Amino acid sequence: MDFQVRQLGLAEIPSPLGLSTALGDGIADYTPADAGVTVTLPAGAGEARFELAGPRERLYFDGPRVSAGIVTCGGLCPGMNDVIRGVVRSLWRMYGVRRVVGFRFGYAGMVPDTLHPPIFLDPDRVDAIHHRGGSVLGSSRGAQDARQMMDLLERMDLDIVFAVGGDGTMRGAHLLAEEAARRGRRLSVIGLPKTIDNDLPYVERSFGFQTAVGVATQALRAAHVEAEGAYRGVGIVKLMGRHAGFVAATAALASGEVDLVLVPERSFGVRRVAQVLGEILDRRGHALVVVAEGAGQDLVHAAGKDASGNARLADIGIFLRDTLHERLPGASIKYIDPSYMIRAAPADSADAVYCGQLAEHAVHAAMSGRTDMVVGLSGGRFTHVPLQALTATTKQLDLDGDLWRSVVDLTRQPYVLDDPT
Amino acid sequence: MDFQVRQLGLAEIPSPLGLSTALGDGIADYTPADAGVTVTLPAGAGEARFELAGPRERLYFDGPRVSAGIVTCGGLCPGMNDVIRGVVRSLWRMYGVRRVVGFRFGYAGMVPDTLHPPIFLDPDRVDAIHHRGGSVLGSSRGAQDARQMMDLLERMDLDIVFAVGGDGTMRGAHLLAEEAARRGRRLSVIGLPKTIDNDLPYVERSFGFQTAVGVATQALRAAHVEAEGAYRGVGIVKLMGRHAGFVAATAALASGEVDLVLVPERSFGVRRVAQVLGEILDRRGHALVVVAEGAGQDLVHAAGKDASGNARLADIGIFLRDTLHERLPGASIKYIDPSYMIRAAPADSADAVYCGQLAEHAVHAAMSGRTDMVVGLSGGRFTHVPLQALTATTKQLDLDGDLWRSVVDLTRQPYVLDDPT
Amino acid sequence: MDFQVRQLGLAEIPSPLGLSTALGDGIADYTPADAGVTVTLPAGAGEARFELAGPRERLYFDGPRVSAGIVTCGGLCPGMNDVIRGVVRSLWRMYGVRRVVGFRFGYAGMVPDTLHPPIFLDPDRVDAIHHRGGSVLGSSRGAQDARQMMDLLERMDLDIVFAVGGDGTMRGAHLLAEEAARRGRRLSVIGLPKTIDNDLPYVERSFGFQTAVGVATQALRAAHVEAEGAYRGVGIVKLMGRHAGFVAATAALASGEVDLVLVPERSFGVRRVAQVLGEILDRRGHALVVVAEGAGQDLVHAAGKDASGNARLADIGIFLRDTLHERLPGASIKYIDPSYMIRAAPADSADAVYCGQLAEHAVHAAMSGRTDMVVGLSGGRFTHVPLQALTATTKQLDLDGDLWRSVVDLTRQPYVLDDPT
Amino acid sequence: MDFQVRQLGLAEIPSPLGLSTALGDGIADYTPADAGVTVTLPAGAGEARFELAGPRERLYFDGPRVSAGIVTCGGLCPGMNDVIRGVVRSLWRMYGVRRVVGFRFGYAGMVPDTLHPPIFLDPDRVDAIHHRGGSVLGSSRGAQDARQMMDLLERMDLDIVFAVGGDGTMRGAHLLAEEAARRGRRLSVIGLPKTIDNDLPYVERSFGFQTAVGVATQALRAAHVEAEGAYRGVGIVKLMGRHAGFVAATAALASGEVDLVLVPERSFGVRRVAQVLGEILDRRGHALVVVAEGAGQDLVHAAGKDASGNARLADIGIFLRDTLHERLPGASIKYIDPSYMIRAAPADSADAVYCGQLAEHAVHAAMSGRTDMVVGLSGGRFTHVPLQALTATTKQLDLDGDLWRSVVDLTRQPYVLDDPT
Repeated sequence: MDFQVRQLGLAEIPSPLGLSTALGDGIADYTPADAGVTVTLPAGAGEARFELAGPRERLYFDGPRVSAGIVTCGGLCPGMNDVIRGVVRSLWRMYGVRRVVGFRFGYAGMVPDTLHPPIFLDPDRVDAIHHRGGSVLGSSRGAQDARQMMDLLERMDLDIVFAVGGDGTMRGAHLLAEEAARRGRRLSVIGLPKTIDNDLPYVERSFGFQTAVGVATQALRAAHVEAEGAYRGVGIVKLMGRHAGFVAATAALASGEVDLVLVPERSFGVRRVAQVLGEILDRRGHALVVVAEGAGQDLVHAAGKDASGNARLADIGIFLRDTLHERLPGASIKYIDPSYMIRAAPADSADAVYCGQLAEHAVHAAMSGRTDMVVGLSGGRFTHVPLQALTATTKQLDLDGDLWRSVVDLTRQPYVLDDPT
Repeated sequence: MDFQVRQLGLAEIPSPLGLSTALGDGIADYTPADAGVTVTLPAGAGEARFELAGPRERLYFDGPRVSAGIVTCGGLCPGMNDVIRGVVRSLWRMYGVRRVVGFRFGYAGMVPDTLHPPIFLDPDRVDAIHHRGGSVLGSSRGAQDARQMMDLLERMDLDIVFAVGGDGTMRGAHLLAEEAARRGRRLSVIGLPKTIDNDLPYVERSFGFQTAVGVATQALRAAHVEAEGAYRGVGIVKLMGRHAGFVAATAALASGEVDLVLVPERSFGVRRVAQVLGEILDRRGHALVVVAEGAGQDLVHAAGKDASGNARLADIGIFLRDTLHERLPGASIKYIDPSYMIRAAPADSADAVYCGQLAEHAVHAAMSGRTDMVVGLSGGRFTHVPLQALTATTKQLDLDGDLWRSVVDLTRQPYVLDDPT
Repeated sequence: MDFQVRQLGLAEIPSPLGLSTALGDGIADYTPADAGVTVTLPAGAGEARFELAGPRERLYFDGPRVSAGIVTCGGLCPGMNDVIRGVVRSLWRMYGVRRVVGFRFGYAGMVPDTLHPPIFLDPDRVDAIHHRGGSVLGSSRGAQDARQMMDLLERMDLDIVFAVGGDGTMRGAHLLAEEAARRGRRLSVIGLPKTIDNDLPYVERSFGFQTAVGVATQALRAAHVEAEGAYRGVGIVKLMGRHAGFVAATAALASGEVDLVLVPERSFGVRRVAQVLGEILDRRGHALVVVAEGAGQDLVHAAGKDASGNARLADIGIFLRDTLHERLPGASIKYIDPSYMIRAAPADSADAVYCGQLAEHAVHAAMSGRTDMVVGLSGGRFTHVPLQALTATTKQLDLDGDLWRSVVDLTRQPYVLDDPT
Repeated sequence: MDFQVRQLGLAEIPSPLGLSTALGDGIADYTPADAGVTVTLPAGAGEARFELAGPRERLYFDGPRVSAGIVTCGGLCPGMNDVIRGVVRSLWRMYGVRRVVGFRFGYAGMVPDTLHPPIFLDPDRVDAIHHRGGSVLGSSRGAQDARQMMDLLERMDLDIVFAVGGDGTMRGAHLLAEEAARRGRRLSVIGLPKTIDNDLPYVERSFGFQTAVGVATQALRAAHVEAEGAYRGVGIVKLMGRHAGFVAATAALASGEVDLVLVPERSFGVRRVAQVLGEILDRRGHALVVVAEGAGQDLVHAAGKDASGNARLADIGIFLRDTLHERLPGASIKYIDPSYMIRAAPADSADAVYCGQLAEHAVHAAMSGRTDMVVGLSGGRFTHVPLQALTATTKQLDLDGDLWRSVVDLTRQPYVLDDPT
């Protein structure tokens, strides 16, 4: 598969970056126009070739004449402020862009009648925001009409929009890029993929994921302490993961003290889980369970949709706590839901590095005239991925793969957890 | 009031500590037999005189011949392992005691037919436990029959018992001391007061409280980030405090970002609270509420008693979250309950110092032959307090006092929050 | 001793705070005009009575007409930004003061020809500064001519100056108050005592001290890990403490793993120290030493004075490292100097509470018309202390007292460490 | 290039792991005997094919009959305890190995006349060691005679040795494997590469590196606070990196506040550096410099070799501090060397995951009969790399590559920093 990214027009303006085109001169190089990376897709899906991200020798936009905006959407995720800071600084310091605005509270702030008008951003204003969690722009879930958003962008005379968000946000960004094309408006729409669950395709590690695992590991440690400190103590920790168990599986490996990991990719029955835990209690005296929020959804009842149209998950954590309370008499059950403490954490150093580079590459892409795309990551290299490709599929744990094998090896939990019928 | 502490018998054995009795020689001194401290009790309750804690020149017990045990009871609290470590090291290194046992899982491990027999403790075994949260001995709530406990202690030939716990634990310790006296058994029972709520009288600061405030402040920060990051965002954090709002009030001051503090000492109505928050949302755009678990109990229904006989608190946090969800349409409400993460934290440096000194003074008291007492803290000095005095009353926030005034000054919340009738 | 604080003139303006004067009505109270606290001074120095800090019913200044300034001096200390934030917010929100300036880089920014003019401060500007270490105003050491400073204040028409700093700063503040009096200018000069060493009299705990101990404890833990990880490993950590060993002693207690504490109050010889450490290495295999920067100054050569006129301390840490390297052949010595990492830390939750209350009381004092004073702390109560009293003496570890006894009990180090002659 | 790993003999024992050989059955799979990964080597060095690490269906060793040992060498590095714990648990729980020993203090503990004999390790003993920094086994630098080491191993009847260390350690491990072969002894020698500098080839990320960057970033933040807080403040932080600037470059990206990064790969002159910093001070008022320990070695004098035969680096940090003190009059220079605090940190969650998997793959390799190899990492997959290949070359920053380009983009520092001649 060869993922072609849309280009607004000819790139004829020389870059002001002053990089080299020669290898080995000790000066960093422009990324050649035709540079790409070929990766093997998981699950036998063949190979894909992506355009390599990076600074181009010829640009489409002239920095000092450009206006750019940035919007953050969806639930909070560690690193959002790092991304905002990185985009503003890269625009300003590398390309001399002087007009940068931030939309408030997600797409809700990108329509003409918003209660919260956009604010101006410059390096001073964003200088220290990376030490804080959350998004200084605010965020919200839910879509807006692409025509209304385009109306505001035209009125503001914006050339570039950076949209930070998940698959819903990227669908909105794609509609916006199409609306711009329909109107013949030269607008670059660049997505920066945000998913604390790490479940987007062509993004081998999403920003905030590492930090989320780190804070989740602290919650696991607290639950382990509570479990050890009580007679037949059971700690249950619910972690993020609507459709994919990456946070739960990785945090379990990091903790090194988990006995049972329940993820959306693997069904389970409550009788079997209670039985397994009962055996662990008999053997070790205490047990630690981590459950992804999207696990066991067949066991609980779904409850409508939220403003972004995502199925609202019935609470598997509460369900497990109450069910195990009944099925494990004498056990002392402690339940921790650290989700908001995880989402609100500032980025750790690994995510800080990643967010800075993600922002840098988003800015390079926009200045070169790319649009309707998102910055991906494959084989350790940043890539250009069409927005439609990103939203066409999702990523899940490979139950035959190395990560899940390590989890099962570490926990010694059975591969199959279904109730006997 | 003069609080007299019971003494097992004549203290005639010279202390092995080699301290001085002369001031100004640069060598630390024994605490004189008659040393005391007079403190003004809060709320106009007059003055009280306590015996000063400290090493005595003459001891009742001979270290190398002594057997001692330690038990930890009730909910987890930062510093329990520091206290265990401190007691073991002080016994061993200062007084040459070589037989120290730890009872498992609270008073449940102090009866003859316990499933979890006591374990031996020495400095090696406890060397690194202070870096971990919880209690390496385990803990449990609930009382045991004093006669059964005394049966086990006699069988084990123990001379000293250190009981770490709250008011229920101290009532049990007092009954144990009385049972020992009834049998003519020379048993020293020394309490080390544990209350993460900081609500025990004659203990001006309880161990773990400072750490609890620190971790609570992190939860408040996360809730603030969530509130700021959403349109009309409201963060609600429930903190410890069954009968006293010390954790909630102090964490609010530490955070510096709280708008409303709800404590057990001050009643409130939901209409009034919703109105106050609505005004804050109109003015600031977001709001941060901290609520002690024992606040507003008239508003929710009590639900029986737990194993320690404490009234089980109906969940004011969940109640507030759901009520405000109804009464503040358009608000985005995020609720955090960090209780287990707070209880499971290792002690911070201030609590580590305090726990070490508390343990040291408990050991000095036991070796001198004191019994039926607890180590208190008044005016910055460690004291000896009879067990019965400690359990006769409780400590609450003084709504006319400095701490609460600072809270109201900082938050600008109204003094009165009752619903208009 | 009765410490009288100077009052600028009659306080006749009713306070806007709306507090109560009746106990027991659940509304916090104004501090009565004659409220005081009597404390027993250490080292047999008798008793002292201080005026109690707190909000007064009658004020000297009218908030909306007042101009105030704040300056931070000396080395960095955790909590400086909390103090700045607290002063600005208390002035603004409690008393309606709307003109507040911050001087840049200490007294160097308080003279007419400064390169860095003062900046305006309001609650928005200081809203998030308490999450950062350091001082957003900047700081510097060294004095300025009181007449020049007064010239600038007159030109700016300031009524109140808050000076945050140590004893040198307080001497400068006193000269400024005297210069104002000489000119008949109604200027309130209020000191907020800053000393990371905790060595100021009448201030039983200085802000930043607790945080410093916390960060120092982490450094001790690292040094312990290094010592344990090497054959005959010796970790040496140098901590703050020019004239007093409070940080070193308290961090040693918090760490629980220190073998030897060297402080300015207690002389020592290198032969004796090497001998003691050699014995520890033989017994335990590794050793951990903490040394206050002002310890053993007779052993190293003093090297002039710094800009504040303090004797520049020759480096006892380097000296010890090199000396022990020679005297303990075969030992693996690791030396850590965490000073700047300690000084630059943001305030922990205990210091955050303290800084907020300190600022609040400084503002109350200024508004009531007090001047030439500093806010002290005795017996857990904030007090008013004349500037001259504060700078007349210093505070040191009491080698006969409880804290040092705990250190010696914990480490088992000898009381006397002098070289045999 | 095709890297062939030595195999002790036929692997004929069925694995006890019970994994699958079928894709898509939801059960993790054995790694096929011929599985490999082909990677493009950096700097145009062509491609290399490595054998893929993972559990084999047929083993050479029979777990319950096997004896294994583990040794940790060189300077401390975050994650050493995680690796020890992982090896012990993987041997014990996956393969039923019951005889595992740990050698004390590096190769010095692997000779017959060692003062510190090996200790037995089991899952209980290592259960909580991953929360601590350092190595519970202790470590040391320097080689031992392979024949002596082999003598001890024969006497102990060991089948497998896991050696954790850097290139010197791996050279020693290779000599040991050769000595075993010479004696016809069936010994599996498996290396686990440790380099906090991240400078080993065929190991795209070494354990502890991520944690080191995290702690280094905190030191940079402190230095930034110190620089901002002083008039013309300059913060200098020295970080690890003898031959490669990965820690310095990555921490600079994570910090987002660094002005100048000095690495071994890029020469510089002090006049030029002082000039660049002077301009930054004029523009921003303060500056932050990070320097790798191996940078600028031509500027300082080398001073012999240490016990491992590494060139002892003259201290570029001290040199820079003193030089800039002279060349930047009026600047306030603060120097931080956080090296030991970095080395002694416990592993962060990312390194904890990595160390666990590294240990797991080392155990799989040993049980399958591989020897004279090290576990590498290429393209996100664990590999088998011959010991000789690992020590034949080193890894450095590619000055033409993406990472260094991001550093220069972020800092805006000149590519060339040599003094004009």
